[in-house]
Amino acid sequence: MRYELYYWAGIQGRGEFVRLALEEAAAAYVDVAREAGGEGAMMRLLDGEEVEHPPFAPPYLKAGRLLVGQTANILLYLGPRHDLAPASEAGRLWAHQLQLTIADLIDEVHDTHHPIASSLYYEDQRPEAQRRTSDFLKSRVPKYLGYFEKVLARNKARGGHLIGAKLSYPDLSLFQVVAGLRYAFPRAMSRLEPNYPRIVALHGMVAARARIAAYLGSNRRIAFNKHGIFRRYPELDP
Amino acid sequence: MRYELYYWAGIQGRGEFVRLALEEAAAAYVDVAREAGGEGAMMRLLDGEEVEHPPFAPPYLKAGRLLVGQTANILLYLGPRHDLAPASEAGRLWAHQLQLTIADLIDEVHDTHHPIASSLYYEDQRPEAQRRTSDFLKSRVPKYLGYFEKVLARNKARGGHLIGAKLSYPDLSLFQVVAGLRYAFPRAMSRLEPNYPRIVALHGMVAARARIAAYLGSNRRIAFNKHGIFRRYPELDP
Repeated sequence: MRYELYYWAGIQGRGEFVRLALEEAAAAYVDVAREAGGEGAMMRLLDGEEVEHPPFAPPYLKAGRLLVGQTANILLYLGPRHDLAPASEAGRLWAHQLQLTIADLIDEVHDTHHPIASSLYYEDQRPEAQRRTSDFLKSRVPKYLGYFEKVLARNKARGGHLIGAKLSYPDLSLFQVVAGLRYAFPRAMSRLEPNYPRIVALHGMVAARARIAAYLGSNRRIAFNKHGIFRRYPELDP
Repeated sequence: MRYELYYWAGIQGRGEFVRLALEEAAAAYVDVAREAGGEGAMMRLLDGEEVEHPPFAPPYLKAGRLLVGQTANILLYLGPRHDLAPASEAGRLWAHQLQLTIADLIDEVHDTHHPIASSLYYEDQRPEAQRRTSDFLKSRVPKYLGYFEKVLARNKARGGHLIGAKLSYPDLSLFQVVAGLRYAFPRAMSRLEPNYPRIVALHGMVAARARIAAYLGSNRRIAFNKHGIFRRYPELDP
């Protein structure tokens, strides 16, 4: 079976957390919206009246007849199938808990440039974006990164992963968080990163994995840009 | 075994989605922070250095030695144990997908009164809150409620539930969404509700369930107030 991933063709966005898991798993998949006619196929699953379990928004994953939406839910599904989650129920709940906390952080990243409305341009909410981003960099990023640094420190396995002695999907997602924050807020991150050595090391460890390195060097990895969740506006990162 | 729920004592907040599931299940639980000394116990699990799997924030649930955080993750755990989720894996993923979409809506509700920073008072972000709430009521509430109305319409079981022919935990959460939106935005909701008859009917059906009705009439149900996620500021609901 070949998975079908449905996500916007031009951005990393939330789809990237799924792409990273599929790539690390060396899973067979099609990034549908990047194929000819793919965006139409994506919209038919979103809007089609015959879809019994319609998703609210991309990303969603088709696995045979199963259609799974919500980024963290897709990873919940993929994790145990591709050895990217612990075997026990307690371990899987812990992995999912970490993933949902990463999802909360990602929502806050989005709102740094869109604090008023997703439907408005950034330029129409710039003063609000500056106020929100200032708080985000001062209070929220340290709170989230401090949390994940603590989780890494308390993992008794000591291999540098979030959970146990092996890579799991939240490791891949935390890598993406660091990559995205570095892109969007290079100045703030250069100040902050020394406080989070375990997170920085995890980012490096993930980036060096053979399949991830190959993916990052391929044209399957879309470059960060001003349409995604992580955006670089210099005025937001003084 | 008696569950221990940890959540802020004075508000419904995100903890309410868990309370509703525990009440419907007639599960034995303690709402720890509402007991004498309970808030300290909650903070020790949040900050204690000996906690192997620390939560990021309340709510969290202790079930024997297991500690589970993140609202939707707690429901993922409770659902199959208390007949509040489908039996099949596909059904459970669908239930969780709906729950995560409700969680997204709840995040947006919070940001109507705190669009700039959770750490600031509402009064310090009132103009931004008005702008954000205006978009929320005009664009986002119809998008979310339209989605859940569609999900209800496509459920072939025709019993008025979100999933199949039985109550599941997302039904309880959607009840809470309606209750909260009615509290916070009574004028907007009186205009909007006629468009979503299935959601309104589901709210009524859940409210009429014996255990839920008993809960809502008890002092275990904290009243909505200006410290929770759903807040009534008349200027936001013109």
